[in-house]
Amino acid sequence: MTYYLAVDGGGTKCLAVLVHPDQGIVGSGRSGGSNPQSVGRERAVQALTEAVRLACRHLPEGSRIGTAAFGLAGVDTPATEEDARQLAQTALAAAGVSAECVLVENDGLIALRGAAEGGRGLLVVAGTGSVVYAGDGRRFVRAGGWGHRVGDVGSAFHIAQLGLAAAFRSLDAGDSDTPLIRHLCAAVGVDDLYALYDWLYLPGTGVDAIAGLARAVDAAAQAGDRAAAEVLARAGSELAEAAALAARRAGLVDGSAFPVFLVGGVLQNSAAVRAALLQRLAGKAPGGVVEVPRFAPIYGAVIRALGGPAAVDQRLRERLLAADVLLA
Amino acid sequence: MTYYLAVDGGGTKCLAVLVHPDQGIVGSGRSGGSNPQSVGRERAVQALTEAVRLACRHLPEGSRIGTAAFGLAGVDTPATEEDARQLAQTALAAAGVSAECVLVENDGLIALRGAAEGGRGLLVVAGTGSVVYAGDGRRFVRAGGWGHRVGDVGSAFHIAQLGLAAAFRSLDAGDSDTPLIRHLCAAVGVDDLYALYDWLYLPGTGVDAIAGLARAVDAAAQAGDRAAAEVLARAGSELAEAAALAARRAGLVDGSAFPVFLVGGVLQNSAAVRAALLQRLAGKAPGGVVEVPRFAPIYGAVIRALGGPAAVDQRLRERLLAADVLLA
Repeated sequence: MTYYLAVDGGGTKCLAVLVHPDQGIVGSGRSGGSNPQSVGRERAVQALTEAVRLACRHLPEGSRIGTAAFGLAGVDTPATEEDARQLAQTALAAAGVSAECVLVENDGLIALRGAAEGGRGLLVVAGTGSVVYAGDGRRFVRAGGWGHRVGDVGSAFHIAQLGLAAAFRSLDAGDSDTPLIRHLCAAVGVDDLYALYDWLYLPGTGVDAIAGLARAVDAAAQAGDRAAAEVLARAGSELAEAAALAARRAGLVDGSAFPVFLVGGVLQNSAAVRAALLQRLAGKAPGGVVEVPRFAPIYGAVIRALGGPAAVDQRLRERLLAADVLLA
Repeated sequence: MTYYLAVDGGGTKCLAVLVHPDQGIVGSGRSGGSNPQSVGRERAVQALTEAVRLACRHLPEGSRIGTAAFGLAGVDTPATEEDARQLAQTALAAAGVSAECVLVENDGLIALRGAAEGGRGLLVVAGTGSVVYAGDGRRFVRAGGWGHRVGDVGSAFHIAQLGLAAAFRSLDAGDSDTPLIRHLCAAVGVDDLYALYDWLYLPGTGVDAIAGLARAVDAAAQAGDRAAAEVLARAGSELAEAAALAARRAGLVDGSAFPVFLVGGVLQNSAAVRAALLQRLAGKAPGGVVEVPRFAPIYGAVIRALGGPAAVDQRLRERLLAADVLLA
């Protein structure tokens, strides 16, 4: 009998499930983050191996795995996709599991597949970084997500950087006491922008630490700081540009409605960014309707492992949905 | 008899001169870069020590140094100024030289003092980073120069980052073959933007390497790439905003003319950035007239060591100018 393996390997956690086309989910396993860019290759292999091993512990002797579909953080280019494929194959071998076919894609893409249950939709992710995926269920288009060195518009890092620039501009202009400056300094635990500057260029101050300042920008905007409000509006608006681009290229803007899924810390926590994004998106890509993701990203990997949404009939769908692990 | 010591300690080279109020320059010394943020503290001390030692080798036994004025790269905040003061004092001690008074300031500020011969002026620096200083000879105002994590508007790093963002936006839009993309990829020696992305996030790809891509953006603009031209126009325009802010705060915008000094690789090499900067500056801070710096930054440090431009009478001025080392 043929089984299917689905893996969601993200930056903070890793989840694998084993699917049987008649029985639904027959095993699952969790472990730590598996993005090799953040935890290193060795820990990434360990995390994937552990999740796969746990998911497959009930795999009957002599049975085979048809397709193993991985959604992995850090898959952005042909070279990183090849690295991720090797990572996945190394983990399968270490877990003592063999699969006929190993599919690898970005974890944002399985998130869209899961959120839209394999159908049409637009996924906008804005956390520490940002990325957009749009698709009609068969063809997918990506926009943004090119990392902090290119901009990652609308991400927490981008918001923090714009907020810092606005704060230092007001220092240049002679105003060193604004709500934005006070919130940024308080977030870092320093007294003034000079000390914030010193902190900013310490060897240990990384992208995550800077991205953490996005919350201070949001708090300042709520306290009435106009420069902070402009930063959030710009972040949301630039994110909408990327989202509209992807939606148009994926053929979603055809007069009919399509679901828009907003995920990531920035879009969950900042009403201002969300509002700016939706306002601009409505003008650029009409038809978008914000919806709650229907299923978790792992469900997107399950659909892909099985061969697409058409492979999931009503009976299998009900069996799959009996497993809490697939719920968003 | 009292001597004066002036030191220009930059990122790539270090220059020290010993001045006698009657005799002019009586000694000079050169060494390597002394920015502790790039070469480390130990090498910075070595470079400063070597330059000071050479400059002071003709200091007569028993004579004293009144003031030693240092213009040092990396002096941006009270904490970095204190670090630089200790660096200068350590170097003086290591060179066996004692000074009654040790003055330390950013090397951009001595550059303005030198360029304007101690008088009024606006200095706009755009190299790998950027900074603006404006002053009337007594009071100085700084704008920008808050490093690549805040933006450093108009710098090579900023231009490269905007150029990369434009290139990836056009990739998102489905156009992966523009002059900008071709020039960026050629500069890095890769075939396409995916490989450029992989290069961009290699651990060894630092700020300088990314800043180096500014020339590719300029070349693309010259080859007719509209997105690249927009990047250069924006960089010049944002630099003008910072420059106009500083000029107004320093009291330069009073209807009379004031000199504008444009220095750094970006402003030397990119006619487009220069043009955008000057056009915007003319609207925001009328009266600015581009001039060639009158003297080298070290002359600014000499003026400061002597106590200001008023301390330099015509006779001393002629003696000082006999030394090639002070020419811009």
